[in-house]
Amino acid sequence: MLAKDRRTQLCVGLDPDPERIDGGASGALRHCREVVRQTEEHVCCFKPNSAFWEQYGPDGWKALMELHAEFADTPFLLDAKRGDMDNTMKAYAIAVFRTLAMEAATVLPYMGHDSLEQFTQYEDCGVYVVCRSSNPGADDLQHLDAGGQPLFLHVAELASRVNRHDNVGLVVGATAPDAIADVRKASNLPFLIPGIGAQGGDLRGAVRAAWNGDPASCLLSASRSVLFDRNPGRVALALRTEINNVLVTLA
Amino acid sequence: MLAKDRRTQLCVGLDPDPERIDGGASGALRHCREVVRQTEEHVCCFKPNSAFWEQYGPDGWKALMELHAEFADTPFLLDAKRGDMDNTMKAYAIAVFRTLAMEAATVLPYMGHDSLEQFTQYEDCGVYVVCRSSNPGADDLQHLDAGGQPLFLHVAELASRVNRHDNVGLVVGATAPDAIADVRKASNLPFLIPGIGAQGGDLRGAVRAAWNGDPASCLLSASRSVLFDRNPGRVALALRTEINNVLVTLA
Repeated sequence: MLAKDRRTQLCVGLDPDPERIDGGASGALRHCREVVRQTEEHVCCFKPNSAFWEQYGPDGWKALMELHAEFADTPFLLDAKRGDMDNTMKAYAIAVFRTLAMEAATVLPYMGHDSLEQFTQYEDCGVYVVCRSSNPGADDLQHLDAGGQPLFLHVAELASRVNRHDNVGLVVGATAPDAIADVRKASNLPFLIPGIGAQGGDLRGAVRAAWNGDPASCLLSASRSVLFDRNPGRVALALRTEINNVLVTLA
Repeated sequence: MLAKDRRTQLCVGLDPDPERIDGGASGALRHCREVVRQTEEHVCCFKPNSAFWEQYGPDGWKALMELHAEFADTPFLLDAKRGDMDNTMKAYAIAVFRTLAMEAATVLPYMGHDSLEQFTQYEDCGVYVVCRSSNPGADDLQHLDAGGQPLFLHVAELASRVNRHDNVGLVVGATAPDAIADVRKASNLPFLIPGIGAQGGDLRGAVRAAWNGDPASCLLSASRSVLFDRNPGRVALALRTEINNVLVTLA
């Protein structure tokens, strides 16, 4: 487990933006390759978001595959948030875990267990189910009360139910540490926590709420704040250190 | 509106399967091109599901773009079921409505209004929000009771709330005509109804529950049952006729 070996809980998001990077898909590849080189020693995984590669069309997919092939020492988690009926999720799983050869991915829970199981049956791959997202719209559905608990806690239960191969985690946003604490009370699954960078999430509160003693219990992800800094390695090191400093107070 | 001009409420799904079609992405393109040719006069739109093209990698994306470019007379609805935070959905919308140049798409509601609005702001494009899906796992979350009504009716409300440009519809599965009737009581949005073919949905019950007098109110979609028949045109005509025969009894 890299989080333990490298003493880092940090994921860096690889979300190229054509408005900020010149040169189309090859510019995106060049930019992200440099970010990966500079940050690799500080991260436990990279988290490319499929949307940002798809906007370049077929060349974006090619660039992502090339980037992944160049860096075999660090797992790639595709932030794809796929969700569809079983027959379709089977094809998405082939796309993500075979064609793109990703080590892990995010999925959306709305379509239920048969949808998720098409991903979780890949025993060697990690599957993170979106539970409580980091955006303002998280309130609209995720906090609806159903039978005395918010929808996102039902999602945590659903994720546990499909965790037959011990490869399932939850996505919970750093912008809502109280929600993270509620999910941690209900579930011992690993958490992937986006939103600590440009989204302004609460790093300290998120780590404290998520940590359960296992390095995998609490992976934190930053994207734009690292990717578009003039010195991505410095920002990644600073975030890694900040997370580790909080963990020391919890040990 | 093609549904009116061609007197058809039928969408045909374009979901190529490498286990049933030889020749990789170019085989998929060849197969689907032939299906489009044979069925075009009987459909109001084609519904490629992104998963089935993505499993071929960059070549799948290229094939889908080529197929779409060859048939400009019929809208393409990308069944993509995307859902992410606003910044990311902006990139997905560029991928779907600009790079792939689709006329419409499906999205997942779990991330809330700011997620959906990145798609609905494309005023000339249709956006179908998954409300009640056609698979068994629909029960897990979509039927949870929240404040006296199932989650899927909250989704119908959320979809109406983001329908500022009159371009939003709902996905409701033909496998649950009672749920379709419940959604129709609560919402006058157009419905896209998958599940009438291989999934064994109730065509007659679905049409009766969905129809509100507007041809756009009730589009029905079949994929595998058309795509893998030896005579796709005959199956499409039969489905179109069956739908129209039900509509005659409702006029």
